[in-house]
Amino acid sequence: MKKLAISVGDLNGIGIEIALKAHEEIKQWCEPIYCINEKLLDQAAKRLEIQIPEDFHCYGTKGSFSIKPAKISAKSGKYSYKSFLDAINLAKGKKVEGIVTLPIHKQAWAKAGVSYKGHTDLLRTIFKENAIMMLGCEELFVALYTEHIPLKQVPKAIKIGKLGSFLKDFYKEVQPEKVAVLGLNPHAGDGGVLGEEENKIIKAIQKTNKKLGCDIFDGPFIPDVAFTPSVREKYSYYVAMYHDQGLGPLKALYFDESINVSLNLPIVRTSVDHGTAFDIAYKGKARVESYRNAVKEAVKLCDLSLEKEHRDR
Amino acid sequence: MKKLAISVGDLNGIGIEIALKAHEEIKQWCEPIYCINEKLLDQAAKRLEIQIPEDFHCYGTKGSFSIKPAKISAKSGKYSYKSFLDAINLAKGKKVEGIVTLPIHKQAWAKAGVSYKGHTDLLRTIFKENAIMMLGCEELFVALYTEHIPLKQVPKAIKIGKLGSFLKDFYKEVQPEKVAVLGLNPHAGDGGVLGEEENKIIKAIQKTNKKLGCDIFDGPFIPDVAFTPSVREKYSYYVAMYHDQGLGPLKALYFDESINVSLNLPIVRTSVDHGTAFDIAYKGKARVESYRNAVKEAVKLCDLSLEKEHRDR
Repeated sequence: MKKLAISVGDLNGIGIEIALKAHEEIKQWCEPIYCINEKLLDQAAKRLEIQIPEDFHCYGTKGSFSIKPAKISAKSGKYSYKSFLDAINLAKGKKVEGIVTLPIHKQAWAKAGVSYKGHTDLLRTIFKENAIMMLGCEELFVALYTEHIPLKQVPKAIKIGKLGSFLKDFYKEVQPEKVAVLGLNPHAGDGGVLGEEENKIIKAIQKTNKKLGCDIFDGPFIPDVAFTPSVREKYSYYVAMYHDQGLGPLKALYFDESINVSLNLPIVRTSVDHGTAFDIAYKGKARVESYRNAVKEAVKLCDLSLEKEHRDR
Repeated sequence: MKKLAISVGDLNGIGIEIALKAHEEIKQWCEPIYCINEKLLDQAAKRLEIQIPEDFHCYGTKGSFSIKPAKISAKSGKYSYKSFLDAINLAKGKKVEGIVTLPIHKQAWAKAGVSYKGHTDLLRTIFKENAIMMLGCEELFVALYTEHIPLKQVPKAIKIGKLGSFLKDFYKEVQPEKVAVLGLNPHAGDGGVLGEEENKIIKAIQKTNKKLGCDIFDGPFIPDVAFTPSVREKYSYYVAMYHDQGLGPLKALYFDESINVSLNLPIVRTSVDHGTAFDIAYKGKARVESYRNAVKEAVKLCDLSLEKEHRDR
């Protein structure tokens, strides 16, 4: 059974409720190790009126503070950061095979003086690798070629070489059978009338398929048609040129189920795709679908990475 | 009962099948007048093996050619153009109260020497008005602030005055209770870190709400979150800053039901939101949902425009 470190996220939010509620289910697929100490776990469980399962193994991340549901706090921000660091270190030290993260609050990190914008930002710094962000669920995964940049910077970021490397890295990590690559412009440029970046996308696709020796990547697809049922029947992996092109349709269709995966890193990391949801913190209303899917995907990626290691030897 | 002119679209495609199949249903809501002559109708009906309903009233658009299913042809393109012109003229001459268009084939128009890109382009030229394109269905309508322009031109097209006029015109036409206006950048700019165009959007919203005397327009919404179920519960009208931002999520959710509406014109015009579907032409497989919704919406807009006339007197 795969061992996974679970970072508990901001304890003033819904993360710990999800971890406690889903434990019985996820322990069927993995051996979770929760990065929280027993005193804080006790405090949270009492507030939630949930009994702590006997086999809820904790790593014992250091720290102590009073949980204040829905509060943006430096103490809680700091603790969520330490929980995440412990999870990463467990993975780096091979004590676990992957990590699953529960949501942190970005402003709480800022208040605590943590200089990273979020989980992915910190992972990139630690591993000095260009992590690929992929979001979605079994039915539909979307990898983002560009992420958190202003829309006006997107068109000039479309470069044959860079996109080609991205596609190659993406393939190496997920090994999908078929991937739909989106165009950039409305109607995928309509033969150049509505933009010309599609020419670069075509070249990047051709180059990558040739390197891989088979036609894994198809496209460029017309962005607004690509998510209609008849296309989704054929593809469950997409590459979007920019954030909202991929995540608008994804979240419209699969908001509750979606997860966030960091690819192209030396460790496996998946995450829920929702925030701390302060509005429902400690109210017993948190939904576990996204977390459950994040754990499942982490297990799957651990298997894939093991296969890859064997092959590379 | 409202009279509506129906332009039959490219007769080598699925339009006429839809018109024949849906006649019994739509005549409950309107009095349709089909812009086609009886000989061509006969030819199409025979190929489809559909009996022509007795009360299938034709306007008698002139022209004669041999229907060739799935063929891009100058003759068929020319005829679809004439059918559309007849429908417009019926509306201009007050013989009908609105028009519903079935799909034309853009390349067939080009082959026929028609210089317009499509229906909306022609309408803009004839009426010299800035038509607003709105797509969707009862559950979700999306109006496009920018449409068929390259993505790289979108950010600089966001202007306070122009967007304000757009919002005002849109309100006048549809009179919605609440409208969600989308931001431009990922996370709606995240307070300026991911782009600054949202400041202009905020100002345009404030200006317009002030002019209208009530808070009709909300936003800017985070583009990828705006289409999740909890937001859609509250809004059924959206304004998107660009084509794929609005149409990606819309088509992912409601592809078969969606229609296309031209607002801000002196005549009411709605259309199906699909193409000629040559792959299934004359195979009895065409779906009528979009057409049915286009007719319903045309009737609704005719009522609204009548109310408006009364008010303006």
